[in-house]
Amino acid sequence: MSSETNFNISSLGANTFSSPINLSKTTGDKIFNFVEEHDRILADVSLESFNTCIENKTSPACLEKAGPREKLFFDSKKTTAAIVSCGGLCPGINNVIRGLVMALHYFYGVKRILGVQYGYEGLIPENGHEFIDLVPDKVKDIHEFGGTILGSSRGAQSVEKMVDSLVKNKIDLLFTIGGDGTLKGANAIGDEIEKRGLDISIIGIPKTIDNDIDLIDKSFGFETSFDVASPIIRDAHNEATGAFNGISIVKLMGRDSGFIAASTAIAMPVVNFVFVPEMDFQLEGENGFLEALKKRLNQKRHAVIVVAEGAGQHLFGEDSKTYTDASGNIIHQDIGLLLKHRIKAYFDAEDMKCTIKYIDPSYIIRSAPANANDSLFCNRLAYHAVHGAMAGKTKFVVGRLNNKFVYLPILKVVNKRKKINMEGEFWFSVLQSTGQPFTM
Amino acid sequence: MSSETNFNISSLGANTFSSPINLSKTTGDKIFNFVEEHDRILADVSLESFNTCIENKTSPACLEKAGPREKLFFDSKKTTAAIVSCGGLCPGINNVIRGLVMALHYFYGVKRILGVQYGYEGLIPENGHEFIDLVPDKVKDIHEFGGTILGSSRGAQSVEKMVDSLVKNKIDLLFTIGGDGTLKGANAIGDEIEKRGLDISIIGIPKTIDNDIDLIDKSFGFETSFDVASPIIRDAHNEATGAFNGISIVKLMGRDSGFIAASTAIAMPVVNFVFVPEMDFQLEGENGFLEALKKRLNQKRHAVIVVAEGAGQHLFGEDSKTYTDASGNIIHQDIGLLLKHRIKAYFDAEDMKCTIKYIDPSYIIRSAPANANDSLFCNRLAYHAVHGAMAGKTKFVVGRLNNKFVYLPILKVVNKRKKINMEGEFWFSVLQSTGQPFTM
Amino acid sequence: MSSETNFNISSLGANTFSSPINLSKTTGDKIFNFVEEHDRILADVSLESFNTCIENKTSPACLEKAGPREKLFFDSKKTTAAIVSCGGLCPGINNVIRGLVMALHYFYGVKRILGVQYGYEGLIPENGHEFIDLVPDKVKDIHEFGGTILGSSRGAQSVEKMVDSLVKNKIDLLFTIGGDGTLKGANAIGDEIEKRGLDISIIGIPKTIDNDIDLIDKSFGFETSFDVASPIIRDAHNEATGAFNGISIVKLMGRDSGFIAASTAIAMPVVNFVFVPEMDFQLEGENGFLEALKKRLNQKRHAVIVVAEGAGQHLFGEDSKTYTDASGNIIHQDIGLLLKHRIKAYFDAEDMKCTIKYIDPSYIIRSAPANANDSLFCNRLAYHAVHGAMAGKTKFVVGRLNNKFVYLPILKVVNKRKKINMEGEFWFSVLQSTGQPFTM
Amino acid sequence: MSSETNFNISSLGANTFSSPINLSKTTGDKIFNFVEEHDRILADVSLESFNTCIENKTSPACLEKAGPREKLFFDSKKTTAAIVSCGGLCPGINNVIRGLVMALHYFYGVKRILGVQYGYEGLIPENGHEFIDLVPDKVKDIHEFGGTILGSSRGAQSVEKMVDSLVKNKIDLLFTIGGDGTLKGANAIGDEIEKRGLDISIIGIPKTIDNDIDLIDKSFGFETSFDVASPIIRDAHNEATGAFNGISIVKLMGRDSGFIAASTAIAMPVVNFVFVPEMDFQLEGENGFLEALKKRLNQKRHAVIVVAEGAGQHLFGEDSKTYTDASGNIIHQDIGLLLKHRIKAYFDAEDMKCTIKYIDPSYIIRSAPANANDSLFCNRLAYHAVHGAMAGKTKFVVGRLNNKFVYLPILKVVNKRKKINMEGEFWFSVLQSTGQPFTM
Repeated sequence: MSSETNFNISSLGANTFSSPINLSKTTGDKIFNFVEEHDRILADVSLESFNTCIENKTSPACLEKAGPREKLFFDSKKTTAAIVSCGGLCPGINNVIRGLVMALHYFYGVKRILGVQYGYEGLIPENGHEFIDLVPDKVKDIHEFGGTILGSSRGAQSVEKMVDSLVKNKIDLLFTIGGDGTLKGANAIGDEIEKRGLDISIIGIPKTIDNDIDLIDKSFGFETSFDVASPIIRDAHNEATGAFNGISIVKLMGRDSGFIAASTAIAMPVVNFVFVPEMDFQLEGENGFLEALKKRLNQKRHAVIVVAEGAGQHLFGEDSKTYTDASGNIIHQDIGLLLKHRIKAYFDAEDMKCTIKYIDPSYIIRSAPANANDSLFCNRLAYHAVHGAMAGKTKFVVGRLNNKFVYLPILKVVNKRKKINMEGEFWFSVLQSTGQPFTM
Repeated sequence: MSSETNFNISSLGANTFSSPINLSKTTGDKIFNFVEEHDRILADVSLESFNTCIENKTSPACLEKAGPREKLFFDSKKTTAAIVSCGGLCPGINNVIRGLVMALHYFYGVKRILGVQYGYEGLIPENGHEFIDLVPDKVKDIHEFGGTILGSSRGAQSVEKMVDSLVKNKIDLLFTIGGDGTLKGANAIGDEIEKRGLDISIIGIPKTIDNDIDLIDKSFGFETSFDVASPIIRDAHNEATGAFNGISIVKLMGRDSGFIAASTAIAMPVVNFVFVPEMDFQLEGENGFLEALKKRLNQKRHAVIVVAEGAGQHLFGEDSKTYTDASGNIIHQDIGLLLKHRIKAYFDAEDMKCTIKYIDPSYIIRSAPANANDSLFCNRLAYHAVHGAMAGKTKFVVGRLNNKFVYLPILKVVNKRKKINMEGEFWFSVLQSTGQPFTM
Repeated sequence: MSSETNFNISSLGANTFSSPINLSKTTGDKIFNFVEEHDRILADVSLESFNTCIENKTSPACLEKAGPREKLFFDSKKTTAAIVSCGGLCPGINNVIRGLVMALHYFYGVKRILGVQYGYEGLIPENGHEFIDLVPDKVKDIHEFGGTILGSSRGAQSVEKMVDSLVKNKIDLLFTIGGDGTLKGANAIGDEIEKRGLDISIIGIPKTIDNDIDLIDKSFGFETSFDVASPIIRDAHNEATGAFNGISIVKLMGRDSGFIAASTAIAMPVVNFVFVPEMDFQLEGENGFLEALKKRLNQKRHAVIVVAEGAGQHLFGEDSKTYTDASGNIIHQDIGLLLKHRIKAYFDAEDMKCTIKYIDPSYIIRSAPANANDSLFCNRLAYHAVHGAMAGKTKFVVGRLNNKFVYLPILKVVNKRKKINMEGEFWFSVLQSTGQPFTM
Repeated sequence: MSSETNFNISSLGANTFSSPINLSKTTGDKIFNFVEEHDRILADVSLESFNTCIENKTSPACLEKAGPREKLFFDSKKTTAAIVSCGGLCPGINNVIRGLVMALHYFYGVKRILGVQYGYEGLIPENGHEFIDLVPDKVKDIHEFGGTILGSSRGAQSVEKMVDSLVKNKIDLLFTIGGDGTLKGANAIGDEIEKRGLDISIIGIPKTIDNDIDLIDKSFGFETSFDVASPIIRDAHNEATGAFNGISIVKLMGRDSGFIAASTAIAMPVVNFVFVPEMDFQLEGENGFLEALKKRLNQKRHAVIVVAEGAGQHLFGEDSKTYTDASGNIIHQDIGLLLKHRIKAYFDAEDMKCTIKYIDPSYIIRSAPANANDSLFCNRLAYHAVHGAMAGKTKFVVGRLNNKFVYLPILKVVNKRKKINMEGEFWFSVLQSTGQPFTM
């Protein structure tokens, strides 16, 4: 196996311009060195994987190291950049936008930076969303705010029309901040650009509050998400202890992967049960959740349950007739409400009094400003995105792997979600923290 | 009119014990003076009302001034106190409990203080909820936590059984922390005690996050409620600006009175529309809300709406068939969801694209810890409750009027809710802040 | 005594323009009524003071009620306003600026609003500080930020030059946000305007984080100050309990009045000793502070001390030689450092081990954004300031008395500080909360 | 080179007891596997280092993987554990204590857990500090609080006496939470135990808010430190912009390493200059800091400076006579005050007006509660510390390397501080964020 070659980044062509950043090429002069094209970061840090490579005489899986290059593809004085944010809100988008603008403006002297409004919609002229001029003065305070100053939207747009718009507006670099769909769109834009033989670089900054980008350490906004969720868990605990057999259910984000729910539970160890999409579980039966919950209440008289929105989808089949609402499928799909109904029904049948509170803080988390560690992370991500873009790399995303910033081809991170390894140390930490049964 | 006499507080009898607090009776010695039984606070501060009294030769409406009395009814060394918290959570309950315990223990030397668990249920022995010994060490850190360390419950219990329990446990003072129902219960307990000729004092500390206690300036927890709501409005604003024609609806507490929604709107002036229970409004029509919202969107492309849970109940009649769900009346009664559905239907019909986010932070607000001004207020309320109780007053609540602490008969504050005066300066401030039409 | 007349507000002349705000003159139509010129609020709410007036046949002390007038002095379409902020930072300045701009722009249609930069310095052309155009878009988000977008400065400027500047720039209304010195300056500007027979209104919005404005309930920013100070007290408590005989000293604002220190202490009842400027106390001797502190440590092994910056100035005489530093008078005047040194010296002499931590959070508090209740208060203050200004009132401040907004002549609130009444209920609350000896 | 062997952990002897935790030994059964003794994590993740190993046929540097072992040295039913916290406060100590107690109690059934009070002092009987019984009920809420419930102290104690105390109290496991000095002490205790042939395990949980533990990713509390520092930077920025040529200096922790100052600066990009101990810089001269500051002020009229407490020590020689105070060396060593004085002197000489504010938030940061990511980290650290201890490992610390939890010999992390690589990507991020000159 030579997985290394799989991670090669597309490039627009030969780099002929010298970087305006005065960095070094020698070690020991106390000045940062330009990153070399062959610098790589190992993907797997276990000795076992090292030894396997030795035995099999294979190269280890590696990712390209991010950072400023000595030679640039773009002439920074004549470059136009554009920034677009797509999909749902996530803490840190404004930090990324600010970081991109500052890096383009101050490091490279790129003075024409356009903000595309309302996601990919803003690249379709028919929608009438004007570009915003992004200058340092416009963005200097936006890191204090959640949301995105550019607005956002969901859904795909015509790739051809978007490329037409890039061409018409003389855009050289398009920074796309978005999730799986956005990145697939970015890649398609990159393919169309390639087909037309254009010199436009497409860069992805992966945004998923769920932290489910494959291969990389973490996505921006994720740490803020469970930082904001934590006091809500404290509130839920107050509600639970405030009533006899008090039960609080908190639904958190996590469509396919339960990182937020699981991290929140370890961070706030008053959580007694966590449900994530990666997990099978049964409500009924001797080893089922409801029995475990009853046991917990009889011991402690209160319980806090955290559930990822995508957990327990297997339960809806059996329940689909019972819990419908006028709009059709809302209750069907709300695992928090399903749990609430099922818990209530169970304890009613047991003639055991309980009080259930259901908390769904979704937007309160999504629209929060980034915390300090995420702000730091967003800035560094943005800087590296700019360095890669100016070097003419395209159809790539910027990320962090084993604490190092790396570039990956967009295609390597789409279509596949990072999931919690249910046999890994992280999930074991969850089980240790909650004390919930290993299997339910 | 001599409304003054109407506010007389019931008393258990003659005060024969000297207060253990070393206060003064003379002004100028830099030591606080005992409060005299005849000290009164004017209810109305307008010159107009003053002049009316002069003209009509009537006494002005007055409330009894709270504070430590020189002579006590109870022998503090032999006194047993009990504390019970009832109803929904509200920021500050633990602060009040802490303040009561500290004042009883340190000011008066009352060493036997019982915590009644899970509201009035805890006074019914059949429920098996044991009393908790409340000593300074047990309560010293609880002001940092929302909720109530005693637990709570809703609903009435047998007054006779509760009085039996007080007698059996030799309880001399019962401090009840609760809302309208709790206070009525407290008064009924007081009546039964009177009937039996017992020397037990019943004290109410009014708890209503809605701030709808009649006559008094404010209830504890109310200021915290809109302090906690404010960043949620900021989040809602982020969600609204994050989408083209983005609309955020935030539902806040306020069953009969809209103080929280209205205060939040002034505190966070990004709110564009507020709906409170005191307010009539129409959705449809030229001057209706939906038309005003459309105008707003066409100007600014986003809107934030705050709605008190009890607002717009007149709208449910016409809609009752349209928006039902499996559980029966949930959607029926949720004005936030109704607004969401009606807004969506309206803009669909207008073929105008919009994105609506609905945020319902209820428990996140109710279970928060008290902010600094509420903590301060809770402590002073608790101290004054103890002073009144030790003086043998009964069937009274403690409150604040025109920035002075006062005692009122429980009967004066139950059955009638304080409401926003729709012709008053406060509501006019809301209209000024939001810019919403004076009538819709 | 007819103190009422003393509170009359100066006016520029007859009001001839109709207010553009569509308010009412009749009660019961659910629309706010214009405030009448004769509406007054009683200053004293005790029954005793009422009875004294009756007996002596005197008028009670009253303040003019704030609010929109039916007739205006200024023609709102042709009016130019200016806003200046002076002195040290205080939470809420930006909220006031925002409120003023929004009220002028949206309620009255005043479109030319100038922001004066860096305090009164900005009114002296030689300093070269340009005016800033204040439009809604410029100020819409500033309530999220502490500080002042206009900048500030300390110190007096030439009154004549400032009036020249007002005239030259056709400014009709000057809103000054500042403390005692600023307000005296504003009054002097008003006097000079009167002397020259100009139609310019000068309005003061009193700013003092110390809450020491005489007569009124509270000044803006004050509640935020002890809200921000409270977690710092929690930190100080952590430091104190984290060491054997751990002592934390927190110095808070309060040059002449100790409201912040005292309020913080009640809000955070882990404070064991408070020192305020209004208070006499001795360090040494049997009943002195150091003996009381020793007793506390021997009982609990930790103590938290809060000291207002202006407290204990009488102690510096004796110490002036001992604690000097290179810059001259810094340590001389720092009561927190003095306490630290004296406590250390005392326990060293007693051969009693202790650990002292000193925390001086000054700017962290001053520059914080306003909390929700202060934001609400700032907005309402600003609205009332504008209503009074448009009605041609001048040389007045806006404030709140007994929960009602009022106008007062500037001269009534300068030169005299509100102080804590050491025999009043508020200070008694402090003593109850801390448990410190009544006299030390 | 075979650096791998250098990282071997000491062990008390053969492990003969089966773990009470029901884990797995096979992959694919959805149950976490016991960690094998030979599991290792690579220290260096660059491809370059991998290739060097291949070429030189050396083993890569590796650390032992942390986690539960199948066989234990200690019989969990008969084990006694003790926990001690030493040195200055740091966010997360209580989280670690809670995690240790919960893991010992619930995972392994260790019921006798002693809390040692006031650091190593608590292991010297003469000091009279009693042990505290640590049970789940005692620690369940302590994660909400900063500080340490056990108290702390600084300084060394007699190793012999401490070991005597461990023996006398039948302590089998001693968990020490502390910095460099504490860990050296722990190792010395371990050596003495070895000398006496005792079966007592000594475990270190490295605590340094400065994040200067060598080899590992990060230490607990560090992320919280710059999370708490960030709003203080926002305040400093408000103070700076609030005055003409306003300059704010914020001193942050960082005796030998500037990670907090540097991370704060990237997280809050309003910082314009950062000084860290790793950095040489000059104040005077054409390329010195003061000239750069002047340039900044002339462009923007405000500046925010962050300085680590250990930065610029080379400047004190020349200044030592100028800035002394009564206590001797305080001002001498305070780089923040030195900068303040030097800046003032410089602009005075230039006749350029400026306003300087100095903020020193030290204890406010040290005593804060851990944020969510640190809470999560503390729990996992504590769990792994317990797993290693029960397996009979001794004289080791638990840490994280390349996102994996590892065990290291204590001796590998003491005596050498991790420092910012001034040629590395992290420091380059700081320079990019602040825009300060690469060299001053």
